[in-house]
Amino acid sequence: MSTSTVNPELVKARTQATFDPLQLTYFLYDGPEKTKRKRYLQNIAIKECEEQGFKRSAELTREEQYEQAIRKTTYTYKRIVELGLKDPVELYMFKEPIFPSESSPFGLHESMFLPTLQKQGTDTQRQKWVPLAKQYGVLGTYAQTELGHGTFLRGLETTATYDVKTKEFIINTPTITASKFWPGGLGKTSNHCVVMAKLILAGKDYGMQSFIVPIRDVQTHQPLPGVTVGDIGQKFGYGAMDNGFLRLDNVRIPRENMLMRYAQVLEDGTFVSPKNDKLVYGSMTLIRAQIVGGTARGLAKAVTIATRYSAVRKQSEIVPGAGEVAVLEFQTQQHKLLVQIASAYALSVAGRASLAAYTRVSAQIESGALEELPILHALSAVLKAFSSWEMAYGIEQCRMACGGHGYMLASGLPKIYAHEVPACTYEGENVVLCLQTARFLVKCQDAVNNGEQVPSFVSYLKKPKNVQSQLSDKIDLKQLIEAYEHRAGRMIAEATERIKSQLSKGLKPAEAWNESSQMLLEASLAFGHAFVVRAFIETVVSAKLEPSLASVMTQLCELYALNGINKYSGQFAKGGYFNDRQLELIESRVYDLLAALKPNAVALVDAFDFPDLVLDSDLGRYDGNVYEALMKYAERSKLNESEVHEAFYKYQKPFVDYMKSVQSKL
Amino acid sequence: MSTSTVNPELVKARTQATFDPLQLTYFLYDGPEKTKRKRYLQNIAIKECEEQGFKRSAELTREEQYEQAIRKTTYTYKRIVELGLKDPVELYMFKEPIFPSESSPFGLHESMFLPTLQKQGTDTQRQKWVPLAKQYGVLGTYAQTELGHGTFLRGLETTATYDVKTKEFIINTPTITASKFWPGGLGKTSNHCVVMAKLILAGKDYGMQSFIVPIRDVQTHQPLPGVTVGDIGQKFGYGAMDNGFLRLDNVRIPRENMLMRYAQVLEDGTFVSPKNDKLVYGSMTLIRAQIVGGTARGLAKAVTIATRYSAVRKQSEIVPGAGEVAVLEFQTQQHKLLVQIASAYALSVAGRASLAAYTRVSAQIESGALEELPILHALSAVLKAFSSWEMAYGIEQCRMACGGHGYMLASGLPKIYAHEVPACTYEGENVVLCLQTARFLVKCQDAVNNGEQVPSFVSYLKKPKNVQSQLSDKIDLKQLIEAYEHRAGRMIAEATERIKSQLSKGLKPAEAWNESSQMLLEASLAFGHAFVVRAFIETVVSAKLEPSLASVMTQLCELYALNGINKYSGQFAKGGYFNDRQLELIESRVYDLLAALKPNAVALVDAFDFPDLVLDSDLGRYDGNVYEALMKYAERSKLNESEVHEAFYKYQKPFVDYMKSVQSKL
Ligand SMILES: Cc1cc2nc3c(=O)[nH]c(=O)nc-3n(C[C@H](O)[C@H](O)[C@H](O)COP(=O)(O)OP(=O)(O)OC[C@H]3O[C@@H](n4cnc5c(N)ncnc54)[C@H](O)[C@@H]3O)c2cc1C
Ligand SMILES: Cc1cc2nc3c(=O)[nH]c(=O)nc-3n(C[C@H](O)[C@H](O)[C@H](O)COP(=O)(O)OP(=O)(O)OC[C@H]3O[C@@H](n4cnc5c(N)ncnc54)[C@H](O)[C@@H]3O)c2cc1C
Repeated sequence: MSTSTVNPELVKARTQATFDPLQLTYFLYDGPEKTKRKRYLQNIAIKECEEQGFKRSAELTREEQYEQAIRKTTYTYKRIVELGLKDPVELYMFKEPIFPSESSPFGLHESMFLPTLQKQGTDTQRQKWVPLAKQYGVLGTYAQTELGHGTFLRGLETTATYDVKTKEFIINTPTITASKFWPGGLGKTSNHCVVMAKLILAGKDYGMQSFIVPIRDVQTHQPLPGVTVGDIGQKFGYGAMDNGFLRLDNVRIPRENMLMRYAQVLEDGTFVSPKNDKLVYGSMTLIRAQIVGGTARGLAKAVTIATRYSAVRKQSEIVPGAGEVAVLEFQTQQHKLLVQIASAYALSVAGRASLAAYTRVSAQIESGALEELPILHALSAVLKAFSSWEMAYGIEQCRMACGGHGYMLASGLPKIYAHEVPACTYEGENVVLCLQTARFLVKCQDAVNNGEQVPSFVSYLKKPKNVQSQLSDKIDLKQLIEAYEHRAGRMIAEATERIKSQLSKGLKPAEAWNESSQMLLEASLAFGHAFVVRAFIETVVSAKLEPSLASVMTQLCELYALNGINKYSGQFAKGGYFNDRQLELIESRVYDLLAALKPNAVALVDAFDFPDLVLDSDLGRYDGNVYEALMKYAERSKLNESEVHEAFYKYQKPFVDYMKSVQSKL
Repeated sequence: MSTSTVNPELVKARTQATFDPLQLTYFLYDGPEKTKRKRYLQNIAIKECEEQGFKRSAELTREEQYEQAIRKTTYTYKRIVELGLKDPVELYMFKEPIFPSESSPFGLHESMFLPTLQKQGTDTQRQKWVPLAKQYGVLGTYAQTELGHGTFLRGLETTATYDVKTKEFIINTPTITASKFWPGGLGKTSNHCVVMAKLILAGKDYGMQSFIVPIRDVQTHQPLPGVTVGDIGQKFGYGAMDNGFLRLDNVRIPRENMLMRYAQVLEDGTFVSPKNDKLVYGSMTLIRAQIVGGTARGLAKAVTIATRYSAVRKQSEIVPGAGEVAVLEFQTQQHKLLVQIASAYALSVAGRASLAAYTRVSAQIESGALEELPILHALSAVLKAFSSWEMAYGIEQCRMACGGHGYMLASGLPKIYAHEVPACTYEGENVVLCLQTARFLVKCQDAVNNGEQVPSFVSYLKKPKNVQSQLSDKIDLKQLIEAYEHRAGRMIAEATERIKSQLSKGLKPAEAWNESSQMLLEASLAFGHAFVVRAFIETVVSAKLEPSLASVMTQLCELYALNGINKYSGQFAKGGYFNDRQLELIESRVYDLLAALKPNAVALVDAFDFPDLVLDSDLGRYDGNVYEALMKYAERSKLNESEVHEAFYKYQKPFVDYMKSVQSKL
């Protein structure tokens, strides 16, 4: 990235930094080697995107976006073969600039269809399907959600009835609400899908199972008989993706198309139960852990854009008459941005921590030890919810921090928001997930109350609640971890108490649970928040960072933790844990940190090392030449293709003539 | 609205109501007569939209949206003449179903161009321009914002240099950042605009003045010589609107085109100062007061959709095995929705209160009394900011409360969000506005500290801070108002203190201000919040409502106020104002209110009386038949126009063939 034409304001902002952003980039991307490789791959992708003439989605209609997505996808996958890329991180990095905050219509094939075949297929099924899928001749998606049901799996209505005579399953959509709805790539792209359906054997319901259902002819791509399939239409975002609907009118598939690694249906229609169905949870947990990392990246993009723009955007004076300043000089603007920078780093660390937990527990599972699975599940559920909500709120903060121009598609921010916000909904709706985690936490609390053992990372539940923080002028990071765990512990204990008090009023357990669920939700989030604070602080403290970087990262940890206390001060102060003086100290320390971190704001976002193409933003450009870019974008508007728009001749002129004639009659 | 085909779940939800929603509708629309008239006009509009075959924007490209907007606008304005509509409320109601969460490209002509001519034009100017504008032969917009400046007016770069010889102004765009950018209707629709430009007389800068600049030929609609004008391209929302850019290359206009009601430039180039330039603030204040009402309506739409859908959406069981329930039965869902319902009512009342304040103060101003102008300005600024932020957050809460389907454009929610959220930015960026209000509040605080008088509605600044709330089991609404005013008073006092302490460190006043600005911002919002709580409670208490309705509205007031205390409990508790027991009482009362209000949730949103066309939502339909509607929407997707999309032949098939050939070589 040459600095020769960089906006002088940005040059100035960069020279203020007290640390070398490259060192931080290494921290984020696991060292110089991997960073180099990442840049190498992304530079190839960037160069080729230009050669191919791919257009920004901000200039395309939805239909054009879909068509370009197929073009991009097929191009990219060819290149991946040619470049021999295999490592998931390298694949991710290579694709990132080609699909900036976009999803490929082949995405579900890679992330769900193929993994499901591999995990839930028998050896024979794997041998048959996996090679076909890897060649993309069989292109699939994962069809779980229906028009009428997402969250509650047992409510799905699609049926798979076994016909002993023909040894086939009859897959059927009995009602309109049973139509599959939402699966990515289902509308126009896929020719197969894994369908979740209720297994019916001899009239008896055996619950949800997965079936491979061909939906389009592999040669002609025409829908097969009995199959009605299509795109679901325009959405908030995801314009490039053909999320689809699917109705199956008694479509027959061979018995062998039920994925039978766990449950089985024998030829004669006998059901064989799975030995252990908990294993199925494993992959959900992985995806959620990955989402946490994704939310960090989504927020990091938004705050990179807003921070660079704020260093370039001159607006208003601080000292009247002394000239305009970059808006980053305003404390309120620093607050908006630095809090989100801290959050992006915290979530990034939490994402890694939850992936590490997944890897550790997976290894245990492989060797048959399932004890930690519930913990992992509880943790990944709430982290996914906590991080996606924080991100969604944060992205919009960043967008609005850009004033009017943040509203332009050219800013990149509306697209990032619309693309990332569904992370609050898919792979487990956030509230539902938090309540699942709460169930685990309440069990732990009950165990504590009964003097039983609990997993180590909720051991703070055992601590007394009537204590006071020792926090004083010299803030110690350990005290901040303690504060978060105290708060979570208290909230979990109180929510558990509320369930009891509702039971004592005569409510059934399920009702008492529901009447306590808002408290449970909040307690669950406090638990997630505490995990993030601990992970962030411990990672920074234990990382071998250069002193100049270590000091900045420590400030960022502090800001992250203190700002949360400030925001939820009532939850922290309850029971006298913090007194007013301590709270004031915290608040004023937040302001000191804003001032201290401000000179490093641009360096902190530069360190994310997003190429311009990934940000896809006229405001977030590395070179800061935002106005020329915005104006060029404006000039290319399709409405500018003619000087006088057709609508003038068709409607406006006749209307003016009419108004004149009416007026003249008066 | 016939109930014959209404979804039985909604019928059930409606029968649970303990009050008659029509009574509440009367409350909202000022009585039965006006409600009847509103319905009459909206029904005409609805019928004619259907006859005209206007399409939902959720099915159009941006270009189609613009073209349809011109068609709709010209049709509507013709009908307005034919129907003889004049009253602003009636005009609003008639247009609402035709432009559901959309802006007309003629919008700025009505809301800014014409009013500016009327307010800032001399009698001669009015006589010349107003009739032309009323006939739409002259169609204008208001061009203030530039690419480089929005907030800081004095930073605008466009110049208007007087040429004594020709008695003309030369309007010029000296730099790229001086380009006008954002004005609604500027891109393709308007042929004139009021341009804000820096007046230069004999080389001296006289500050910002307004000029009428013709930009397109009134007959041919071609841009005039020296004018470069166009649409700015795609935005988050506002697809129907041609927000535009404008560059003026030394364009000459006659001296008479400067709006000279206040400041004047004589023929010889002498500048005549205005007698009173505070009057100009009046109209800004009006628009902000109107925005408050608009935010209430935006939020009301979103929560109507989400509440009706939640009564229809069955998902998950509360008691296992007892069957699925509507999601409205979950406490967490009730919390999401009822808090937003309360907020929509509170903001609606606050909007009326701030309009009433405007009307009162305007009358004073007409008679020369300007004392209350600063108060009005401070109040309208923070209310605009507070209400638009609350609304933006609330709409997204409602959207996510609809799960995946909330992400469909067909839900109407993304469009409502994207259309309403810029209210946080335009007509004064929210943070900037809050800080303006803070300036007024700090002045008041200083006055209090010096024992001087302050306006009555900040008289609470005089109250002692070291008091405790008397709130107990029997919550009294007055105690809630007191609590909010106590909190605001304390925060204002503390922010003022912070400025002093920064000054004592040796900072300049302006720097001390900036270093206190985050606290000032929060104090300002607390002031706005207190105003809303008082307005809501006082209005409900003093309205002559039927007992059944009064009791529900009182609960809603209570929920609104208590939920805010719960959310910001630290700010309320500080200094011991509330103790832990009181805070627990408040929290548990919130849960009781959710349960108490739940049966009335649907009736409370029905009372907003939005016709389906205004909601423009498949999820918010009055009849609750959401799934059929969603499926029909999906089927009409443009991607479904062919069974096999072109992209398959162009890219996907060749790619699969290639992959096969590569694989066979391995
Ligand atoms: C962009 C996008 C892509 C998607 N891709 C796919 C895909 O590829 N394949 C696929 O199968 N699906 C996909 N989905 C669907 C997605 O998985 C579902 O939307 C998600 O599971 C949420 O379910 P729902 O929509 O039924 O929400 P609902 O469960 O109906 O939620 C509605 C409301 O009810 C509340 N609620 C529901 N149950 C409970 C409970 N037990 N307790 C408390 N509150 C409750 C929720 O909190 C929420 O507020 C996608 C969705 C989106 C938006
Ligand atoms: C949908 C839409 C329609 C519009 N229509 C029109 C129109 O018809 N006509 C027209 O003229 N304009 C229009 N605008 C422009 C709009 O008026 C401006 O965007 C608005 O005034 C904000 O100014 P800005 O964009 O320059 O933001 P900026 O002022 O650049 O704000 C950027 C950031 O800097 C911060 N900041 C700026 N100054 C200060 C300060 N003094 N103290 C602390 N923080 C500060 C802000 O808080 C914000 O976070 C429209 C904008 C939108 C989005």
